[in-house]
Amino acid sequence: MVHGELTKLLGQFRRGKLTEEELLQRLSSITFESIGYAAIDHHREVRTGFPEVIFCQGKTPAQVAGIARRIVRHGSTLLATRAERRHFTAVRKVLPAVRYNPAARTITARGNAVQRSGRGTILVVTAGTSDIPIAEEALETARIMGNAVDHLYDVGVAGIHRILAQSQKLREAAVVIVIAGMEGALASVVGGLVKVPVIAVPTSVGYGASYGGIAALLGMLTSCAAGVTVVNIDNGFGAGYAASLMNRSKG
Amino acid sequence: MVHGELTKLLGQFRRGKLTEEELLQRLSSITFESIGYAAIDHHREVRTGFPEVIFCQGKTPAQVAGIARRIVRHGSTLLATRAERRHFTAVRKVLPAVRYNPAARTITARGNAVQRSGRGTILVVTAGTSDIPIAEEALETARIMGNAVDHLYDVGVAGIHRILAQSQKLREAAVVIVIAGMEGALASVVGGLVKVPVIAVPTSVGYGASYGGIAALLGMLTSCAAGVTVVNIDNGFGAGYAASLMNRSKG
Amino acid sequence: MVHGELTKLLGQFRRGKLTEEELLQRLSSITFESIGYAAIDHHREVRTGFPEVIFCQGKTPAQVAGIARRIVRHGSTLLATRAERRHFTAVRKVLPAVRYNPAARTITARGNAVQRSGRGTILVVTAGTSDIPIAEEALETARIMGNAVDHLYDVGVAGIHRILAQSQKLREAAVVIVIAGMEGALASVVGGLVKVPVIAVPTSVGYGASYGGIAALLGMLTSCAAGVTVVNIDNGFGAGYAASLMNRSKG
Amino acid sequence: MVHGELTKLLGQFRRGKLTEEELLQRLSSITFESIGYAAIDHHREVRTGFPEVIFCQGKTPAQVAGIARRIVRHGSTLLATRAERRHFTAVRKVLPAVRYNPAARTITARGNAVQRSGRGTILVVTAGTSDIPIAEEALETARIMGNAVDHLYDVGVAGIHRILAQSQKLREAAVVIVIAGMEGALASVVGGLVKVPVIAVPTSVGYGASYGGIAALLGMLTSCAAGVTVVNIDNGFGAGYAASLMNRSKG
Amino acid sequence: MVHGELTKLLGQFRRGKLTEEELLQRLSSITFESIGYAAIDHHREVRTGFPEVIFCQGKTPAQVAGIARRIVRHGSTLLATRAERRHFTAVRKVLPAVRYNPAARTITARGNAVQRSGRGTILVVTAGTSDIPIAEEALETARIMGNAVDHLYDVGVAGIHRILAQSQKLREAAVVIVIAGMEGALASVVGGLVKVPVIAVPTSVGYGASYGGIAALLGMLTSCAAGVTVVNIDNGFGAGYAASLMNRSKG
Amino acid sequence: MVHGELTKLLGQFRRGKLTEEELLQRLSSITFESIGYAAIDHHREVRTGFPEVIFCQGKTPAQVAGIARRIVRHGSTLLATRAERRHFTAVRKVLPAVRYNPAARTITARGNAVQRSGRGTILVVTAGTSDIPIAEEALETARIMGNAVDHLYDVGVAGIHRILAQSQKLREAAVVIVIAGMEGALASVVGGLVKVPVIAVPTSVGYGASYGGIAALLGMLTSCAAGVTVVNIDNGFGAGYAASLMNRSKG
Amino acid sequence: MVHGELTKLLGQFRRGKLTEEELLQRLSSITFESIGYAAIDHHREVRTGFPEVIFCQGKTPAQVAGIARRIVRHGSTLLATRAERRHFTAVRKVLPAVRYNPAARTITARGNAVQRSGRGTILVVTAGTSDIPIAEEALETARIMGNAVDHLYDVGVAGIHRILAQSQKLREAAVVIVIAGMEGALASVVGGLVKVPVIAVPTSVGYGASYGGIAALLGMLTSCAAGVTVVNIDNGFGAGYAASLMNRSKG
Amino acid sequence: MVHGELTKLLGQFRRGKLTEEELLQRLSSITFESIGYAAIDHHREVRTGFPEVIFCQGKTPAQVAGIARRIVRHGSTLLATRAERRHFTAVRKVLPAVRYNPAARTITARGNAVQRSGRGTILVVTAGTSDIPIAEEALETARIMGNAVDHLYDVGVAGIHRILAQSQKLREAAVVIVIAGMEGALASVVGGLVKVPVIAVPTSVGYGASYGGIAALLGMLTSCAAGVTVVNIDNGFGAGYAASLMNRSKG
Repeated sequence: MVHGELTKLLGQFRRGKLTEEELLQRLSSITFESIGYAAIDHHREVRTGFPEVIFCQGKTPAQVAGIARRIVRHGSTLLATRAERRHFTAVRKVLPAVRYNPAARTITARGNAVQRSGRGTILVVTAGTSDIPIAEEALETARIMGNAVDHLYDVGVAGIHRILAQSQKLREAAVVIVIAGMEGALASVVGGLVKVPVIAVPTSVGYGASYGGIAALLGMLTSCAAGVTVVNIDNGFGAGYAASLMNRSKG
Repeated sequence: MVHGELTKLLGQFRRGKLTEEELLQRLSSITFESIGYAAIDHHREVRTGFPEVIFCQGKTPAQVAGIARRIVRHGSTLLATRAERRHFTAVRKVLPAVRYNPAARTITARGNAVQRSGRGTILVVTAGTSDIPIAEEALETARIMGNAVDHLYDVGVAGIHRILAQSQKLREAAVVIVIAGMEGALASVVGGLVKVPVIAVPTSVGYGASYGGIAALLGMLTSCAAGVTVVNIDNGFGAGYAASLMNRSKG
Repeated sequence: MVHGELTKLLGQFRRGKLTEEELLQRLSSITFESIGYAAIDHHREVRTGFPEVIFCQGKTPAQVAGIARRIVRHGSTLLATRAERRHFTAVRKVLPAVRYNPAARTITARGNAVQRSGRGTILVVTAGTSDIPIAEEALETARIMGNAVDHLYDVGVAGIHRILAQSQKLREAAVVIVIAGMEGALASVVGGLVKVPVIAVPTSVGYGASYGGIAALLGMLTSCAAGVTVVNIDNGFGAGYAASLMNRSKG
Repeated sequence: MVHGELTKLLGQFRRGKLTEEELLQRLSSITFESIGYAAIDHHREVRTGFPEVIFCQGKTPAQVAGIARRIVRHGSTLLATRAERRHFTAVRKVLPAVRYNPAARTITARGNAVQRSGRGTILVVTAGTSDIPIAEEALETARIMGNAVDHLYDVGVAGIHRILAQSQKLREAAVVIVIAGMEGALASVVGGLVKVPVIAVPTSVGYGASYGGIAALLGMLTSCAAGVTVVNIDNGFGAGYAASLMNRSKG
Repeated sequence: MVHGELTKLLGQFRRGKLTEEELLQRLSSITFESIGYAAIDHHREVRTGFPEVIFCQGKTPAQVAGIARRIVRHGSTLLATRAERRHFTAVRKVLPAVRYNPAARTITARGNAVQRSGRGTILVVTAGTSDIPIAEEALETARIMGNAVDHLYDVGVAGIHRILAQSQKLREAAVVIVIAGMEGALASVVGGLVKVPVIAVPTSVGYGASYGGIAALLGMLTSCAAGVTVVNIDNGFGAGYAASLMNRSKG
Repeated sequence: MVHGELTKLLGQFRRGKLTEEELLQRLSSITFESIGYAAIDHHREVRTGFPEVIFCQGKTPAQVAGIARRIVRHGSTLLATRAERRHFTAVRKVLPAVRYNPAARTITARGNAVQRSGRGTILVVTAGTSDIPIAEEALETARIMGNAVDHLYDVGVAGIHRILAQSQKLREAAVVIVIAGMEGALASVVGGLVKVPVIAVPTSVGYGASYGGIAALLGMLTSCAAGVTVVNIDNGFGAGYAASLMNRSKG
Repeated sequence: MVHGELTKLLGQFRRGKLTEEELLQRLSSITFESIGYAAIDHHREVRTGFPEVIFCQGKTPAQVAGIARRIVRHGSTLLATRAERRHFTAVRKVLPAVRYNPAARTITARGNAVQRSGRGTILVVTAGTSDIPIAEEALETARIMGNAVDHLYDVGVAGIHRILAQSQKLREAAVVIVIAGMEGALASVVGGLVKVPVIAVPTSVGYGASYGGIAALLGMLTSCAAGVTVVNIDNGFGAGYAASLMNRSKG
Repeated sequence: MVHGELTKLLGQFRRGKLTEEELLQRLSSITFESIGYAAIDHHREVRTGFPEVIFCQGKTPAQVAGIARRIVRHGSTLLATRAERRHFTAVRKVLPAVRYNPAARTITARGNAVQRSGRGTILVVTAGTSDIPIAEEALETARIMGNAVDHLYDVGVAGIHRILAQSQKLREAAVVIVIAGMEGALASVVGGLVKVPVIAVPTSVGYGASYGGIAALLGMLTSCAAGVTVVNIDNGFGAGYAASLMNRSKG
């Protein structure tokens, strides 16, 4: 549809029905929908392969519901993150078919376009039990984007044999997401064991000098293992999203 | 009035009715009003062109009401920021005509003197929907100071065409206020598109390594676009105030 | 010239000599010149009213000279900041007419277009003698951009009467730039005395807990005086540039 | 018990059974009272001129009451800081005569020994109305330690004439305590106006880049005015205590 | 070879020529070579698909040469990063065929095994000219690991059309590495334009509040564009390495 | 039991009942028990001499109870830290014999194996009354690990004679744990008085520039007394655990 | 002289020889001397009891010499801090009688007015030998301001008896300056031993987590001993100056 | 003199003129030697089991030599850390028998008293080759204090089998010192493998977000492995010293 409208505009311009000035302005404006408090980027799916995702924190339930309705109406897949139950309640009123995962804090509804497209499996690994909610956010994101997923929980380095025992699962994954708080050492160990991209997610688990995830964040950024890239603290969504891009078949 | 009292004092001094010591002390003291917990700076309007603004955070409702009453009695315009509803309730009891904007958290009452004086329009731009409360504070401030205002919401750089589509609005503004959390990149992009002053307001929107606005603050201070100046995190008032000064016709 | 080429391209497109794809690509590419290590943004002057400025730090003398030559050849005004003498030596070889200010560390050459256009005077104020190099950078920038400038040096708040004695100069300025290290208190005091925009520049002057300018930076961001906006530490250029935008006659 | 042992020791000393040296050494080792959760330092009054002060934060009401009872029973002056009402309620049960200042969050009871002993007046100055609770803590401390006190509230530097108008009060003080949040510039201005010690107290008033008082703290530590010393953020007690030491007549 | 030795050991154990204890110890030790100051991990190539890389910083030239010689002798590809000329001089003495890239600060020698294996092109994009040395390190790394590479230099967001003009190159890349100092906004803009993984590298380019790359680092971690992952400040090697893993054909 | 299973596996391998691949995978997996949300490291007791400890923060009561049940069933000693009452309630349902210490926030149950094994006494010293909860956590940990313990409370350096008076207790301890908030100076003083290991625990007691324990943490890390090692802020458990290791008879 | 000129001006105004405008401007301007790069505050001696002090860091030798000459010509005492030898060389050319202390990095020349005026002795105490240069700066400052001084070096708390052995010197001082790096614990110990003001100076001595003095700074700000105030890191001058104010006889 | 007085005291004790209690108390007060710039703590050996160690940083060569001479003359073992060659040159002039280790930057001379006294072996483990200088400092310290030592270099977690292959050495050690920069993950892995105390030393090896060792420091403080204690960044001496205390036979 976006593409169709673009062709129409250029045709009008060529036939002189649009001035130069008008053309340039319309070229951009057809690709998003302004609803007062938000400018919904419907074109994002064309550009990046996945529609706009709603970050609920700081938005009212009514705002989230309004944006969600327009995304779904547009035929796109819905993913809303950091969603509290009050957001879900508001969205469900206008979109009864949405699903809420309270651990992951996600609201989802599958659009027309998503199909299993990833090349391999995205494996989500956590250092501890407390990191599971962030893992759930990553898993929900990767699933809704059409990937096969798997996970390993509570395999932190204080008992190093727990992760070593899973070397086959590690070897079989196409992308590995490592989620850890405290010192985040698991990312370095895993990074040294596999030949696929490792995405590290520092979590705010820990206390004292963990400083809400800074210790893990710095540890992962300075990892002695090459091939590890990092996303923001507690950003399970970002890891799941990036892993999906890495898992896509190019061409 | 302030000026009249000054002339009177110097007259008394010349006629010997005031000693040198007395003169110097009175010179300063006529310009503010002490009410125990506050020293209201009535002279500020003369010096800076706008009366003292009440910062409500950390003040009791009774204190805010007491200060507000004296400002209004003095014929000045009232602007109170970071006002909670309890502050508003207290002020309304003594000044029934005040207006409360809960999103902006401002209490306002127009004084005798304000008139539309700015040269052009102050345009307030936000990166996301969550930045709107800070935008509201900026807009309230700019409006009460006599400026024409306009806004663009949710035009962050992840969908760069959204801001590019608004280039005409950007070109027509006299001052642009850019409000953004997370990485605050919108300030740099806007700064590269306009020939008027850009005031950047980092917001505490985001999580993890956004550190309550530090990421955006540092990003805006180190912007690769020249002409961008910065105010404190979440300081919509400060941006609106500075924009008003920039928008004034000098001479 | 930029505008002419744009018209030509759209004409070719309308006549079918350019495909849609070709048009879009050419639209952007005519406005900058790629020279391998740099993409010179000749269009910036059209957009922002002043040509691209060269930030010399991290660039080789040969790179600076190469960029400078193209800017001047394009008829634009040259301003290079953070220039060491070795940069100047390289630039002078290809552009003998350039001027070097070692205190400000700027290389300048006036283009065809610059004329005195600012509405009033930009006043640069420093807290101490050690802040003068940053003041020089601000002054050079404001001058080359066509403004009348003036300055007050060493009027910090430990001797508050020094700045109070200059109240007339302060009142007459169209924009005031306050440059201070240590605790940066001068910005707050000046901000409370004038009715024009104040741009605060924290400097890295000081030791111990001044942390290379952080103390002054935080002090200026949290200033109790409204109307103060802030630029990066030691960023005299940024202050001069922003002041020039504020001093322009709009319309 | 402490008292009994003290009497015995002094008796031995009087009868020549203890040398002066021996007496002094024994005096220290018997001078605290262990009550399980606390080791009350009754000797502190001898060493430092004022008895142990109770810091209530992190202590249960029962612990505060237990310590308070022993201090008062020892005939010493009672000062408890950071006291919540629940602490006061517990203390009042065992010591009905104590006084609670909810703004200052202090519990006090005058001991036998305190008398007006300071050489001059301790003047407490605040930048804003929101700084008053910290000022109250400083005033309570200075008063209970036997000093004449005075105060000036809301005289921050954005209206510089407010503090200049009070130059006589400033000149007459023996010690000045300056309490300010945000950028804390008032300390530098006052430090440049007086010839007596200035104690600066940064407060956590402000938001964004004030970082709970860091901006003011750094500003005060790097003050361009000599003679300013600093205490911890919001530490009104520490300022009042140090001011009392400075105000004592030595010998 | 590693695999052959493993089989031999297990055969010996099965035949009773190795005790259980001996087997376990040998299992690990065959895979690295200890040379006193280093334990060279020859097994890494098997595990991760690329041999150990030498990080020269903090190592003596003799140590670097010693490690390099063993890696090459083992038939592996050599990559040494952060190499100063003195390191190169030492390595060249024992390995005359190595190549030194002074801008990238890399020493390289191609091993037997490397062949063009990546699925697509790795595109390296910099915001400014000063970021080029880090880009060179990323390019050298990606090249030696068998990838097709391309680059775009100096396309920062202050002139947003420069990157928009290159949308075709961006669309054709399999992985994009974005290298930027100052506020690092380019990563967010690029992240919003492509459907492939984006690796962001903050650089220490900038001054004042850029804090040696922290501003860019935080900006990239908190990017409003999904799909962006981050490596350490100035870590061109890490970005090139991770991009190579992402570019590999799995299976 | 663990050892028995290991022998069995190697026997099967030698007899050809397990392939090489199967052996390696089983070798690791026998030593932990996977229950979905946790991988309980039963082998830890063999490796480190003490079973896995449950860190309750971030875990649901059901998760804690599930893990606790398996540890106890395995015959091991149970120690759960940072346990809230809701955790205790859940654990008591499945393990009625557990003990809860609300001050220390620990849940404990003694296993079969623990016996008094330490060489000497572990002495826990606090600077203030507010540090006692952390001390309780250290004492519970040391006790459950089979050590004799003792404590000294509220002996901070502002009354230096209080700790000097206890020099005999200090001299008799085998390990000393020093727990202090604010500036943490007690660790340095004690470190200079004893000839045994001193473990310093910074606490989050204090306000303002204590920054939740950073002041004490930095003070202890930079202690002028040699022989002092440090654990995380408020980490009484970690100190008790490390002290137990130091107190063990080796061989 | 300053006072005389003031009287003259007011006389002229009363006789109508000065307009109101002229009077106000002259009132301030007579009290400082502008020499282009500096505005020398000759009035400071009247206000604060001591003339302006030259902070040499960031000033050229010529600037320091120029300012010094005017201070001495005015009959005031000269104190220049952070002076390198090149500053001294320049000053000595115009003022042959000045004295340079290379350890303290001070240039001094006694003016007409200074006489021994302090009430008691200022005692400077250091924790280590490495802190001595800062102590020298404090001692030079206190001496030139007319105080009796004494010192104790290398009495840090790791050998607590060293400071306890000096209790008599501590008891006899009127003000104590404690200078310490690393964890700065000495300030707390001394603060608990004396009944006079203690000024703490953190030094940048130490490494690692001492962070150039932050550990000591935070430790001193959060000292558990009341009565301790703090100056900037390495600020021996500030401590000496503040101590002089505290030591003055008021009235 | 110290020695003379000591003799006298012991004579008095032998003749019954001093009780044991009195003797001990007197012993401390005479036990340091003041040499102007230093107060040498000869008693430290009695209290802590090892004489005072000289920290050379910030001391002049003459000062170091002066202190060293007195320590050796007293019959004590000499250990000077952070010694540059210029310090060694000065010390060797007065003490020809001292030994200098340039990698460890230590000057040592064995005293009368040291003998092999530790219970077991202290094992020093490094993550990389660049950490070796810190390891050398730890080894020198442990050796001079009478311990058997061993080391493992370059066994970081990116090649986890390197450390696993050394499990026997790890199991046989009495204390393990783990030295690592970057993310410091090795401490957690080793902590999970052994049943003896682990001392972690963060090093300043790394770049970017390693922040001179902060990443490793935070990682080690928040280690998920219990039993790990931490010393200051690059503090090999502190680790060696603490390990020696832990290795001593108590009673």
